Amino acid sequence: MTVKYIRVNEQKLLAFSTKVLEKNGMPHDDAFIASRLMVNTDLRGIASHGVAHLKGLYVQRLKTGFVKAKPDIKMYSGAPATAVIDGDRGLGFVVGHKAMQEAIARAKVTGIGAVTVRNTTHYGACSAYSLLALKEDMIGFSCTTGGLNAAVPGASGRQAGMNAMSFAAPCNKEFPYCLDMSSTMAAWGKVEIALRTGDMLPLGWTIDQDGNPITDPKEDETKKGAMVMLGGTKELGVYKGFGLNLMVDVLSSVLAASVCLPELFQSPETASTCTHFCCAMKISGFIPPEDFKKGMDRMIEVYHNLPKAKGVNRITIPGELEWELVQDRQKNGIPLDEVVIQSLKELASEFKVKYDIEQ
Amino acid sequence: MTVKYIRVNEQKLLAFSTKVLEKNGMPHDDAFIASRLMVNTDLRGIASHGVAHLKGLYVQRLKTGFVKAKPDIKMYSGAPATAVIDGDRGLGFVVGHKAMQEAIARAKVTGIGAVTVRNTTHYGACSAYSLLALKEDMIGFSCTTGGLNAAVPGASGRQAGMNAMSFAAPCNKEFPYCLDMSSTMAAWGKVEIALRTGDMLPLGWTIDQDGNPITDPKEDETKKGAMVMLGGTKELGVYKGFGLNLMVDVLSSVLAASVCLPELFQSPETASTCTHFCCAMKISGFIPPEDFKKGMDRMIEVYHNLPKAKGVNRITIPGELEWELVQDRQKNGIPLDEVVIQSLKELASEFKVKYDIEQ
Repeated sequence: MTVKYIRVNEQKLLAFSTKVLEKNGMPHDDAFIASRLMVNTDLRGIASHGVAHLKGLYVQRLKTGFVKAKPDIKMYSGAPATAVIDGDRGLGFVVGHKAMQEAIARAKVTGIGAVTVRNTTHYGACSAYSLLALKEDMIGFSCTTGGLNAAVPGASGRQAGMNAMSFAAPCNKEFPYCLDMSSTMAAWGKVEIALRTGDMLPLGWTIDQDGNPITDPKEDETKKGAMVMLGGTKELGVYKGFGLNLMVDVLSSVLAASVCLPELFQSPETASTCTHFCCAMKISGFIPPEDFKKGMDRMIEVYHNLPKAKGVNRITIPGELEWELVQDRQKNGIPLDEVVIQSLKELASEFKVKYDIEQ
Repeated sequence: MTVKYIRVNEQKLLAFSTKVLEKNGMPHDDAFIASRLMVNTDLRGIASHGVAHLKGLYVQRLKTGFVKAKPDIKMYSGAPATAVIDGDRGLGFVVGHKAMQEAIARAKVTGIGAVTVRNTTHYGACSAYSLLALKEDMIGFSCTTGGLNAAVPGASGRQAGMNAMSFAAPCNKEFPYCLDMSSTMAAWGKVEIALRTGDMLPLGWTIDQDGNPITDPKEDETKKGAMVMLGGTKELGVYKGFGLNLMVDVLSSVLAASVCLPELFQSPETASTCTHFCCAMKISGFIPPEDFKKGMDRMIEVYHNLPKAKGVNRITIPGELEWELVQDRQKNGIPLDEVVIQSLKELASEFKVKYDIEQ
């Protein structure tokens, strides 16, 4: 299938999304923060976690009241560096942003801050939060539980969360280091993209309830396909993907006095909510930030200059290709596929917001 | 090849290893700590990181002076929760143990403690450190850079460290949660085990300099095989294994004002040294520890009770099988293969320590 992409302007998209969320009852500042993080994610090329979800996920949930437009977010703390936030089922972007700001504020005092978050909802890509720490000369980490679409080694069906994490660290001259990964073969949003584009999935990503591979994303709908954990097989280390997946559940759910992700989905009240965790480490608590950033630049240079494998022109570091996309997209616009464009046009019409976002 | 295993007694092995390290100039307390962590690792079934390395790695390096028996370990701190340790090229077990104790002490005050460690050496398995936090009602994390044996996506040959990490959290009724993983397909110690037992390696673990798969561990020696990063291929997420590998280098090396692992190996002075990172999080800084442990038990129960895949009798959690091995081995002895037993007999003879360790 040939898919048409239309380039939209970063600033116009940001303003558009902010207005749509405001029309759905969110205060301006919260609507702006959510849109900023969403558009940042599209700038980085993570099409699975940006405005593609605006209509079907976020606005839909605001309309039904499942996501609260004006949540009463509460915080509890038992130590100077740590806190628990109850998100009151606010939009994950708003709750997650508050959690990372709180972690940064505590790290300024103690050297590290860690905040775990229960009773929240989908917050997009983890890198939107880890990267917030960098301008404070901190290292950022964030993780989140996700929808119940992952396969547990030894179990049948969709049994674990699509848990994901991001780790980011600042550099001097180069792009920031930024690993942003699901603990599974891919985020479920990648299946949604394949449904829109008509592409097949790589063999090994999803399986049916008997463990047979699925490569047609349509079959993931009809057969309730589950996403395999990173590693894939026992011999190639699937327990590592599973272990990282559970680590996210421990940090985000259990440590926040929530139940674990599979149990959240057992109750209609809490199904489709999730949990987050944010951590910031102040570099000056260890070494001078300038030394750290020089060290990062040097590390990246070392990896860039390794002897290349046959047929390989360049070696790239996590965050590098995403940074290049940001440079291009800030200048030339963000390419959105026609299905997403259509969904934004529908939002414009429904909420009487002018559709004026194309580059 | 049929390999003979001999069961040795935990306490006798601990005493034996302690004496051998003392004969190599280490103070009794340090020799005991190193041996305790090494034997703990054998108890957990991680044969690649226990006393199998006593003769060829640790004693050998103490003899040449590459590892200092009485290092002058120094600490610097820029914030209440954080510190940098210079290990003065001491045995990694001693330096790593000190780092984790320091992280725990700081976490008692602030809620989290994080300590990064430069100028240190091989510290065995990461779980030896993460698990130290649990008896303090803390969550433990530790990671380390390792030998230069890993393949970087896009590069040819052995170019990155065998970096590994462990995350552990306490439970009430059940075994502790403990993920202990390399960022690569497997630890290099698993290749060493295959060399001893004559087993082939799983397809996908190691590759030659042109990227062709190697399954005969002997060829990893003759062809300088490199260990593939977790994920394996681009489509199945090898950038995640690579990204986790670099994350370890950032936390352990760059944040400790060391150079990154590949650069450490460029100089004969520092080749075969490594770097660590230890972090402890006080659970009471978030929620009451009893609530956390009940939540962990409940999480484990949820996963245990998932519908099983065809032919599967039980679903296990990271740390569960290792805990069962500990129960068996504390009672019935630790099985060591005959090559390792022979190496211990040689140490007994060389250092005039009585070989009296069999169960």
